[in-house]
Amino acid sequence: MRAEAELLCTGSELVSSKVNLYSPLFAARLRELGVALRGERSLRDDLPLITRSIREAMASCPLVITCGGLGPTFDDLTRRAAARALGLRLRSSPECAAELRRRYALDKLPPNMADQAVILEGARAISNRNGTAFGQVVRRGRRMLALLPGPLREWEPMFGDGLAEEIVSFFGLKPGTVLSARLKAAGLKEVQAERLLRPVLRAFPGADFTILAGADEIEFGFTVSGRTPALAIRKLAAVKKAARRTLGAAVYSETGEGRHQALGRLLRAGGKTLALAESCTGGLASKLMTDEAGSSDLFLGGTVAYSNASKTRLLGVPQALLERHGAVSAGCAAAMARGARRAFGSDYAGSVTGVAGPGGGTPEKPVGTVFFGICGPRGVGTHKAFFRGTRDHIRLSSANRLFDLLGKIIE
Amino acid sequence: MRAEAELLCTGSELVSSKVNLYSPLFAARLRELGVALRGERSLRDDLPLITRSIREAMASCPLVITCGGLGPTFDDLTRRAAARALGLRLRSSPECAAELRRRYALDKLPPNMADQAVILEGARAISNRNGTAFGQVVRRGRRMLALLPGPLREWEPMFGDGLAEEIVSFFGLKPGTVLSARLKAAGLKEVQAERLLRPVLRAFPGADFTILAGADEIEFGFTVSGRTPALAIRKLAAVKKAARRTLGAAVYSETGEGRHQALGRLLRAGGKTLALAESCTGGLASKLMTDEAGSSDLFLGGTVAYSNASKTRLLGVPQALLERHGAVSAGCAAAMARGARRAFGSDYAGSVTGVAGPGGGTPEKPVGTVFFGICGPRGVGTHKAFFRGTRDHIRLSSANRLFDLLGKIIE
Repeated sequence: MRAEAELLCTGSELVSSKVNLYSPLFAARLRELGVALRGERSLRDDLPLITRSIREAMASCPLVITCGGLGPTFDDLTRRAAARALGLRLRSSPECAAELRRRYALDKLPPNMADQAVILEGARAISNRNGTAFGQVVRRGRRMLALLPGPLREWEPMFGDGLAEEIVSFFGLKPGTVLSARLKAAGLKEVQAERLLRPVLRAFPGADFTILAGADEIEFGFTVSGRTPALAIRKLAAVKKAARRTLGAAVYSETGEGRHQALGRLLRAGGKTLALAESCTGGLASKLMTDEAGSSDLFLGGTVAYSNASKTRLLGVPQALLERHGAVSAGCAAAMARGARRAFGSDYAGSVTGVAGPGGGTPEKPVGTVFFGICGPRGVGTHKAFFRGTRDHIRLSSANRLFDLLGKIIE
Repeated sequence: MRAEAELLCTGSELVSSKVNLYSPLFAARLRELGVALRGERSLRDDLPLITRSIREAMASCPLVITCGGLGPTFDDLTRRAAARALGLRLRSSPECAAELRRRYALDKLPPNMADQAVILEGARAISNRNGTAFGQVVRRGRRMLALLPGPLREWEPMFGDGLAEEIVSFFGLKPGTVLSARLKAAGLKEVQAERLLRPVLRAFPGADFTILAGADEIEFGFTVSGRTPALAIRKLAAVKKAARRTLGAAVYSETGEGRHQALGRLLRAGGKTLALAESCTGGLASKLMTDEAGSSDLFLGGTVAYSNASKTRLLGVPQALLERHGAVSAGCAAAMARGARRAFGSDYAGSVTGVAGPGGGTPEKPVGTVFFGICGPRGVGTHKAFFRGTRDHIRLSSANRLFDLLGKIIE
């Protein structure tokens, strides 16, 4: 039996106006256990549809996981659908009821909460650290069905609280025999990375690879399996070594961190501080630098100098320079970086000014033209780049490139 | 036959590490035609799995749309899967081949491109403005299958280029008899909105409603149908009126725009300018204000004063004030807003300072405590709010609340 799973997410919002963020999260959790996610369904709150989907998925896939629809309200249908699909009854679990009474210090459960203790007959309940809906795992012959609540903070801890164990024992997986890793590489496009990595893919035919395009970066993920944990570790190291050799200095992380995080790590290690001056990115680079809590140790602040007047007033960019070369120029980028370093009193400062589009391009400076200034104790340098894509993509690529440039001068 | 569709998206990246963004986009396109999307599947590149999924979906749903897997490379499997699922042959279409030769000014198509002219027998091909893969529509008895290419810029124009027409005629829909609208309301939580809107939902039993939670806001969407376009318009207006009455002044938009966009609209209408001073949002508010091209007319810039020293140096927040009340205080927020207005010379300025978490909370100022300063020609005001949730959610809620407060003082 191949260790494969299908995911069923319920909720009408998922097929009307909300993006389903869960596939990659479940895929990652399952991959760690050695299980491949082969498909995902998003289903509106529709009892016959959910019932049929569980039945279909279980007819061909050994492990089916549902997510959502376990609450006590009218549109929470998954338990009923699972009971119909498997021909099982729903029954109130005395253990679950006792756990809820204990947790909420109640002598008697109100009806809504009593309903949460109703589970499939024969199912094992999994406690919910952050909600009242129990997870449930039930085996039927050579199949396993797991029902999980919808919120991430409710289902994710369940992997550690018994679900992972159930899955590993169901498939008879040997812990440590399936291993994954990833490399992030800066400044590469997806097609370039595919071309570069083709020999690596050929050299390891049993491994599983993904190349994901980001903004001015790619992520190369790979999963290997070995008969023993030692063999798996050795194979993983071999793939990683080959990929690193191929991608060279472009590799900036083995942990999946973003480039703002890699830069934060470098700054923290050296006890250095940073300030930013942004034009076309409009605050995005500062926003990224402050995504992590505790960034105030290393990030002093930034100036979003969107108008020309603010470049002069706040960053001291000479008006004559703006008139002669325009705001999108190496000279302006250099002056902005110097101005930010001075204004904030930081060790390092970076600046970005460009044409994010969709309008505003000229033949000399088409949409996607971006200049960077990088300023540190040894002076200021500039860099020019050109990015293709939407306004969002150009802005994020610009911020990422700026972080990369800054990382290279930090000592 | 109910006008319903299922969507099948193919691509191994969708079940490994990429979020599938397409469900809401397809749902919106289909809703405009009067068709409900009831489910979506994301499938890895796996011929038996895609074949089985097409077969399953077509067994119960009148319209099945596939997206992706039409290219000429080895992992593009959708045409073969559709041929197997429907028992149809694939044949080279002379018309498609001629179109490709014409478009690329070739006498003879190279093999990769010739392969793109291969379509299902009996299918109608839909031209692709932005790629070489044709869309295909094929009817089998009372079912219709549409195969579309994966990239948004390739499949989206196909709705206008024949696909919408095929769908409308297949279901016998009358244009204009199904109508949708939405209201966005600020400062409401999902549960509050549900409680407020319950009477509206009850009063219009035939209508379709969705309530989506955002950051310090909700979106209320509704779809109605009428026998004639005039009746549909009247019903839509009645739902909208009832919902507006219920939600009151919280409604800030009928177009789905974000609150930064609503604020931008107000500023532009009055010919006014804005500057921002951010602490806990770290640049997010400025980033949002510059998401739209052309925002330089109204947004002069912002200061991300993340450290206390930068609040004093760049915004003139008195050091004594910081020492006495701390950076997370009404006084600091007021001084930041005044400082930003002065530094940038803008008509209006807003500031935000708070505890975004997860660390840094105290009993007096727990995580989620945020102060705002709002400064205009008539002086400065402050506001305090408390948000629950993740760091990201608290930061986005803070930015949205700031935009709302600013909108209320703009004249």
